[in-house]
Amino acid sequence: MVFDILGYKIKETKAPICVGLDTAYDYLPDYCRSELNENDPFETMASDILKFNTAIIDEIFDIVPAVKIQIAYYEMYGYHGLKAYKETIDYAHAKGMVVICDAKRGDIGATAAAYSTAFLGGVEAAGKIHHAFEADILTVNPYLGSDGIEPFLNDMEHSGKGIFVLVKTSNPSSGEFQDKLCEGKANYLQVAEKVAEWGEKFIGRTGYSSVGAVVGATYTEQAKELRELYPHMFLLIPGYGAQGAGGDDIAVAFDAHGGGAVVNNSRGILLAYKQERYKTVSFELAARAATLDMKEDILAALKRAGKEI
Amino acid sequence: MVFDILGYKIKETKAPICVGLDTAYDYLPDYCRSELNENDPFETMASDILKFNTAIIDEIFDIVPAVKIQIAYYEMYGYHGLKAYKETIDYAHAKGMVVICDAKRGDIGATAAAYSTAFLGGVEAAGKIHHAFEADILTVNPYLGSDGIEPFLNDMEHSGKGIFVLVKTSNPSSGEFQDKLCEGKANYLQVAEKVAEWGEKFIGRTGYSSVGAVVGATYTEQAKELRELYPHMFLLIPGYGAQGAGGDDIAVAFDAHGGGAVVNNSRGILLAYKQERYKTVSFELAARAATLDMKEDILAALKRAGKEI
Repeated sequence: MVFDILGYKIKETKAPICVGLDTAYDYLPDYCRSELNENDPFETMASDILKFNTAIIDEIFDIVPAVKIQIAYYEMYGYHGLKAYKETIDYAHAKGMVVICDAKRGDIGATAAAYSTAFLGGVEAAGKIHHAFEADILTVNPYLGSDGIEPFLNDMEHSGKGIFVLVKTSNPSSGEFQDKLCEGKANYLQVAEKVAEWGEKFIGRTGYSSVGAVVGATYTEQAKELRELYPHMFLLIPGYGAQGAGGDDIAVAFDAHGGGAVVNNSRGILLAYKQERYKTVSFELAARAATLDMKEDILAALKRAGKEI
Repeated sequence: MVFDILGYKIKETKAPICVGLDTAYDYLPDYCRSELNENDPFETMASDILKFNTAIIDEIFDIVPAVKIQIAYYEMYGYHGLKAYKETIDYAHAKGMVVICDAKRGDIGATAAAYSTAFLGGVEAAGKIHHAFEADILTVNPYLGSDGIEPFLNDMEHSGKGIFVLVKTSNPSSGEFQDKLCEGKANYLQVAEKVAEWGEKFIGRTGYSSVGAVVGATYTEQAKELRELYPHMFLLIPGYGAQGAGGDDIAVAFDAHGGGAVVNNSRGILLAYKQERYKTVSFELAARAATLDMKEDILAALKRAGKEI
């Protein structure tokens, strides 16, 4: 099951980190930009983005277990962008990485089944299974309830793949609906309860279910609470770095052995080359250095919290 | 503003209907399927889907104002599918239709901005604005709160485009989170209150805001309640046909003049050619006949309710 694999890889690298490849074209240094095809600029932009991504992956695949690839940044560039999305996924897989597709999909049953086919299941055609975007783990939105989640669970049955359900997101206004007190319990806790229920039959060898949850590093109390309430729930922690959280904020989300969570950093790594600290090196070496600094920060915080990996 | 245009077109056609182009390859009659390219079957499948869609659009553009194109069905076939998605949008626009991109996107601010760029805003490159997927209206998910919605509102400022926010969805388990009583009010009503607030500064000539709401035809009481509480809120009503609702179920969602709502039907129209009633004609003529029957059903129901268009 996918969180067993991710857990082993985290132990091996001592890096509970996924690098977020949220690669907007604007993030590319000038020297990475080819001359645009005026009639179809997305083609050139997408191909430059893919080159940038593969250079980053080459520098991080040996030090972190996973990438999280946010599809919005590729959708901006149309189907060319989505071709780069697919090729980034495939390249990360070829380098042995766990791939989290961050798409936050959610819809009614029949449509959720189509999303699940796109990211988890695959389409049978010409005697083979073909994958549109081959995720190991997909992020999903819970607002539509169980029948919008079931198609993903069905595709997880035999594949060992996983999902992260949005529970408490990292953004400033996440509380507007997520924190509302609903029938005696905050809304995000109502969602978490369902996440645990959906995940019951997917618990792997390392004790974690393939149905995990997203909880923002910017909400330390909620991350701590979820970690304590749900020992089988693997947590994806966005919000480190550019969004403001540091190592000590996220240590609470880990179990006693420094397991059960993976922390994402996107802009802090992709744009490291713009920081004073890293600006003497190329973008990909800056990304590697920033990733190693993040690892050190998290390991030190886990040590202070008595949760060494 | 987009709901003024949609409103005028509904009056002109007397059809408060959008045809849902949720075109799975499985929906295509055998005679629409080309021989698959074994190495890259998605390319052939996507091109067959596009042909099917354009044949349907040719038969309905003169009798209904809008199409709703559900992106999940295109994502299944990877970037080739998404090319067919874009080309379906562009074809519907060329025929003068209002295009609703049903993608239910939702994310934190920076990422929502990328989604908004993909569907509403466009990317400036080589001295022009280029559109990935040019929606007139996009469906969005509210779970992340205001800062996940603001980027869409920003892109709506000058373009006159719109969004439909998920309030009460049509699926059986939508109540799990949406109906929970949150601080004295069902969660979907908490969302509806915010939708009204987001929409305040986008009210057009016909009295409807460019920030609309999705409410399932399968939840008559809630549709009635939202119609009464929020006179400026344009409603997108899925759930007619295959999901079980008929004309009388949806009449409550319209204002006194038969305005303020548009009803979607996807499978009931795309797969009409499989129904006994329509099976003597081609799929596109079956789609046209099913659309006209739906129009008649809705107009009769509106007449019974004293809400003639």
